[in-house]
Amino acid sequence: MTNQKSPEGGDRPLAGLRIVEFASYVAGPSAGMTLAQLGADVIRIDPLGGAPDYRRHPVSRDTGESLYWTSLNRGKRSVEVDVRSERGRELALALATAPGAGGGLVVDNAVGRPWFSYEALAARRPDVIKVHIGGLPGGGPAVDYTVNTEVGVTDLTGAADNRTPVNHVLPAWDLLAGSTATTALLAALRRRDRTGSGSDLRIALADVALAGVANLGWFSEVRERGDRPRHGNFVYGTFGTDFATADDGRVMVVALTTRQWHALCAATGTAKVVAALAESLGADFTDEAARYEHRETIAAVMRPWFTARTLEAAGTALTEAGVLWSRYRRMSDVVSDFEAGAASPVLTGVDQPGIGPVISARSPIRDGDEYGTAATASALGADTGAVLSEVLGLSDAELLDLRKAGVLGSG
Amino acid sequence: MTNQKSPEGGDRPLAGLRIVEFASYVAGPSAGMTLAQLGADVIRIDPLGGAPDYRRHPVSRDTGESLYWTSLNRGKRSVEVDVRSERGRELALALATAPGAGGGLVVDNAVGRPWFSYEALAARRPDVIKVHIGGLPGGGPAVDYTVNTEVGVTDLTGAADNRTPVNHVLPAWDLLAGSTATTALLAALRRRDRTGSGSDLRIALADVALAGVANLGWFSEVRERGDRPRHGNFVYGTFGTDFATADDGRVMVVALTTRQWHALCAATGTAKVVAALAESLGADFTDEAARYEHRETIAAVMRPWFTARTLEAAGTALTEAGVLWSRYRRMSDVVSDFEAGAASPVLTGVDQPGIGPVISARSPIRDGDEYGTAATASALGADTGAVLSEVLGLSDAELLDLRKAGVLGSG
Repeated sequence: MTNQKSPEGGDRPLAGLRIVEFASYVAGPSAGMTLAQLGADVIRIDPLGGAPDYRRHPVSRDTGESLYWTSLNRGKRSVEVDVRSERGRELALALATAPGAGGGLVVDNAVGRPWFSYEALAARRPDVIKVHIGGLPGGGPAVDYTVNTEVGVTDLTGAADNRTPVNHVLPAWDLLAGSTATTALLAALRRRDRTGSGSDLRIALADVALAGVANLGWFSEVRERGDRPRHGNFVYGTFGTDFATADDGRVMVVALTTRQWHALCAATGTAKVVAALAESLGADFTDEAARYEHRETIAAVMRPWFTARTLEAAGTALTEAGVLWSRYRRMSDVVSDFEAGAASPVLTGVDQPGIGPVISARSPIRDGDEYGTAATASALGADTGAVLSEVLGLSDAELLDLRKAGVLGSG
Repeated sequence: MTNQKSPEGGDRPLAGLRIVEFASYVAGPSAGMTLAQLGADVIRIDPLGGAPDYRRHPVSRDTGESLYWTSLNRGKRSVEVDVRSERGRELALALATAPGAGGGLVVDNAVGRPWFSYEALAARRPDVIKVHIGGLPGGGPAVDYTVNTEVGVTDLTGAADNRTPVNHVLPAWDLLAGSTATTALLAALRRRDRTGSGSDLRIALADVALAGVANLGWFSEVRERGDRPRHGNFVYGTFGTDFATADDGRVMVVALTTRQWHALCAATGTAKVVAALAESLGADFTDEAARYEHRETIAAVMRPWFTARTLEAAGTALTEAGVLWSRYRRMSDVVSDFEAGAASPVLTGVDQPGIGPVISARSPIRDGDEYGTAATASALGADTGAVLSEVLGLSDAELLDLRKAGVLGSG
C-alpha cells in the first residue's frame, strides 16, 4: 500500500532525508507526518509506554487504540527508548545526529529536556537543524485552546447577541504551527546545502497565533477603530452569511467579487429590490465594503427566498447562477460521502494495525495532479530494532543487551 | 529597517531564491509573505489596478488603504502589468520562467487563466515549480468560509444548547493552505536540486480542510460512534473549559497531563471533593478520558472557586500552582500590551507607506533565537520598472514603450 516508511522512495520530493521527531500532541507530530508524506524517512522517538498523548481521544470503539495518535503518526517509524536513562538518551542523541547528508534534521517539542537541547545536538553534529515547537516564546507552556483566547479570536466568534466567547474546536494554531515547522526545516536545509551551517530554530505557538492575526491587519484595525463587534455568521468585510432553508437545511453564501454578487442577486430574484435599496441608501453594492456595511438589510431581503425553498432546490438554483455557496454539514455527512465513493480522493481508507479500517487522508499536495499514497502508523516501538541496527549499526547482541537492561521498549 | 526586498540577504535561509507570486486573498499571499520573511526575493504580479482583494477590509481609517492587503504583501516587490493583454502576459510568463538556479518558482491561485498554466510555464522552462492553490480539487471555487461548513467544523462549534452552527472568524484553512504551499514549494525545490525535475503541484483548499480533520482521527470516530455532540467551550477528550470570575473576567483552564490535573485540583482547593467524586463515580481522574467524561460535574465542583475571585486573584493562584491557563482577551487587550511594550517581540511596529504606523509581525520562526526584521509592503506596481529591468533586462526605452501602450501600471 505504501513505501512511505522506506528511506528510499524514488523521486518523491523529500526522498533521502532522515528526520527525527521527538514530539507529542498535534503540532510536532503533524509536521513529521507531512514530511513523511513528501517522502522523508521520519523516525519518531517515543518514551517507554508512549508520550502523554498516546491514548488520546478519539479512540477506537473496538480496540481502545487512539484514532488520534495513529492518524498523526502515519508513515513514521517508531523507536521506543527509555529517555530517562543515560543509555536511552544516548541512543536518541545518536539517532538525531547520525551521519549522512540527509540526516541531522530534528523536530521536537520537548520541554524541560536540556539533554536534548540544540547545543547538545550541535556538539555532536555541528550542522544539525533543530526545529523546536514551544508554547510561549519565553518557554512557558501554552496550547491551542489557551493561545486562541489570548489573541482574542474567541471574542469575535459566535452569535452577535451573546457575550460569552466561543472556543474553536479545531486546533487551528496547532496545525498551522506544525506546517510552519516543516517550512522552517526545509528552508534551513536549503541554507545548510548552500553554506554548511546548521540551525537552531524555535517556533512558539503563541507567536504563530499573534503573527497569524497581525498578518490579516486586525491588530492595526483595532488600534484605529477599537474592537470589532461580533458578527455571528457574517463574513467580515464583504457579503457572506448563512441562510436556513424550508427543510431545516442551511447554506453559506459568499459574494466576494462583483460577479459573485450579481449572481447571488440574480439567483435569489432580488436584483430589483437590491437596486432600489442601494439607491435609497445611497450605497454602491458593487463595492464589497458597502455590501458589508448593509449586510443585515441585504440578508433580510434575501432570506424569504431561502426559507421558501428546500436545500436541494436552493442549491440547484445557486449553482446554476454561479453563486459561491456551500452546505452546512455534519461530519457524518462527510463520512456518508466517503462511504458512497463521493468524497474527494484526499480521503482514503486504510487498514490500521491495532484498529482495523479507518478513514485516513493522503497529502493535500497533489504532485503532477496525483495524490500520494496513504500510510499506516507503526505500532509503538515496532521499528526500534530495525532503526537502531540500520542507522546506528547496533548488532543483535547489543540490541539484546539493551532490551534486557530495559532501555528499549518491547515493540 | 529591512533587507527583505533585496535578492541578496546574506545567510538567511532562502537567500538566492526568486519566487513569482500571482495570487490574491489569504492563502497564496501568505505563502509568498512567509517565503520573503525567510529571505527569498518574492515578486508579486498584480493586474492593473490590483487584484480583487486590493481594497479589502480592514482599511486604514485615515487613508483608506487596506490594512489587510499591506499586511499580507509585506516584503514583496510588486510588478503591475495588464494581464489581459498579450504583452502583459508575456511579461508575467517571462518573469516566472526567467533563468537562474533560484528562479522558476511560482505560487498562484489563478482560476480560468490557461495562459498561466503549468504546461505554459514548463514549455518555457522545463524545471519550473508551480504551486497552484485552488478551491475544490476538481477546479471549482471554494473559500475558507465555505469549506469549513462542508467539513462539519461549524457543526461542532458553539454552545451545547444552541443548534445553529457557528462560523469561524479566523480563516484557519486559508492560513494552513498558504503554509502548506510553502512546504510544497521547498520540498519540490529539493527534488529539483537532486534530479533537475520541475513540479506541477496543486493544493485544493477543500482538501486541506478534509485532510486536516481526518488527521485528527475525527472522521473515523464519527463512522464508529456517530456525530460528536457540541461541547461549548469544553476541550474534547480531556478536561479543559472556561470559568467566569467575580469581576466579569474569564479564564480558560486545561488539564491535559496528570501533573496539570493535580495542579488544577490543588489551586482550586477541590482535591478532596474531586477524590470523593472519583470514588463515588468509580472513575480514575488521572485518566484524561475519565476527566472528559465527567467534565460537567468537575466544572460544577470547581466553578465556585472562580466565581468567588477576581481574575487577578484567580490568575495568581493558578500560576503559582502550575496550572495551564489563559485569559480570554479582546484584540484591544493585545494592542494595549503592544503599546506598553509587553507583547511578544513577534509583533512590531512598522511605518507602512500609504498608511503610517501599523502593528505588524515578524516571522514566528526564530533563527538562532532571533526574530527576523519586519518589512513593509510595496505600493502597487512600485517595483515594476526595477524588476523588469533587473530580471528581464528591459531597457528604459522598452519600459517607456510598454508604459505608453498601457501594458504597465503607473506605479
